[in-house]
Amino acid sequence: MTHLNLLVGGPTSEWPDQLTAGKVFGDWIGVDRGTLRLLKMGITPLVAIGDFDSLSADELKLVKSAVSDIRQAVPEKDETDTQLAVTVALHEYQYDRLDIYGATGGRLDHFLANFWMVLEPRYRQYAPRIRFIDKQNTITFFAPGSYEIKKEPDKKYLAFVTLENVGHLTLPDEKYNLKDENVTRPISYASNEFVGDTGHFSFDSGMVAVIQSKD
Amino acid sequence: MTHLNLLVGGPTSEWPDQLTAGKVFGDWIGVDRGTLRLLKMGITPLVAIGDFDSLSADELKLVKSAVSDIRQAVPEKDETDTQLAVTVALHEYQYDRLDIYGATGGRLDHFLANFWMVLEPRYRQYAPRIRFIDKQNTITFFAPGSYEIKKEPDKKYLAFVTLENVGHLTLPDEKYNLKDENVTRPISYASNEFVGDTGHFSFDSGMVAVIQSKD
Repeated sequence: MTHLNLLVGGPTSEWPDQLTAGKVFGDWIGVDRGTLRLLKMGITPLVAIGDFDSLSADELKLVKSAVSDIRQAVPEKDETDTQLAVTVALHEYQYDRLDIYGATGGRLDHFLANFWMVLEPRYRQYAPRIRFIDKQNTITFFAPGSYEIKKEPDKKYLAFVTLENVGHLTLPDEKYNLKDENVTRPISYASNEFVGDTGHFSFDSGMVAVIQSKD
Repeated sequence: MTHLNLLVGGPTSEWPDQLTAGKVFGDWIGVDRGTLRLLKMGITPLVAIGDFDSLSADELKLVKSAVSDIRQAVPEKDETDTQLAVTVALHEYQYDRLDIYGATGGRLDHFLANFWMVLEPRYRQYAPRIRFIDKQNTITFFAPGSYEIKKEPDKKYLAFVTLENVGHLTLPDEKYNLKDENVTRPISYASNEFVGDTGHFSFDSGMVAVIQSKD
């Protein structure tokens, strides 16, 4: 499975240890301040995207001298920098997975915009390829269907999160079960757990996020 | 305006400076590990709520000796500790505002469960009294109507967040405007700003959260 990584400009305190240690492998796209942070880790991103209005003149100069492909957006735009980066990542590159770091913590209006991006018609079909990763959480997205998911060794908790109306949600073999639940508003079914190393679930309409997390 | 404060057990790194400095005044309810943190700041909460399964035996003993009203929930329950605490706060006490601290950062399944609580039929009518406060964000909730809101002096950004279908959302005098927008899915209209010290908005169905934030 091939991964393309995005680094958004959220607080570094939310980074998973692996990223802090510079041990997330693969190609990168830098988003706004994320680009500068990648360069400081010795990583040159394929593309740098953003309005870069949070960078000083010297920082912007460094970015421009290091990265060959820069997409500088105007600050007053309808899309967020992260949306622009996801569009570039999905349309111009062929990877199985898009792992987004730095999109959590800090400003919650940003986090929610990022989290709900997968509900936009233009991104919806790509949702199953998008993953948000931070220090305590991995978020993945699912279209209607039946799935087997694997426990991440370092995570304890499992949550099923309905992003919209979800039909016949069934959790047959987790610690807490659901059967054919029709969920008519967003709910975070938090603090569930795997019983073994894998779990199954299914639903037939809407979109579900799965969050594996630890304290 | 009278305030009742809730302290949930989220990471202390997300606390606003005022809370870290012990300068949030008023009565408190402690939720799970939040109770212990209140006691360590010299604050005895009116009530301590939770399953307390994250506390050591010694820590639990301390809580039990200090707080006269303890509601110990069973760990395997349908409600989160925060939901239990909000129910007690709303049903047993009369305050104009319920300010919730420690409900952001850390596990995102917890944050989303807390954030969406206001959509539950039993809490919906109380949503305008509930507020989430952390280091960078203040979240308030609005039922359909017309409002004037005030800029918080230390915040730069203003976001309008539709939690469900929202009818005729109008932002007449902010930096970025909307007119009679019918919003059919959750959207975080992030990075808006006040033009002056106040702003107006209106909508006629659904629920809207307003987030004031800073970098």
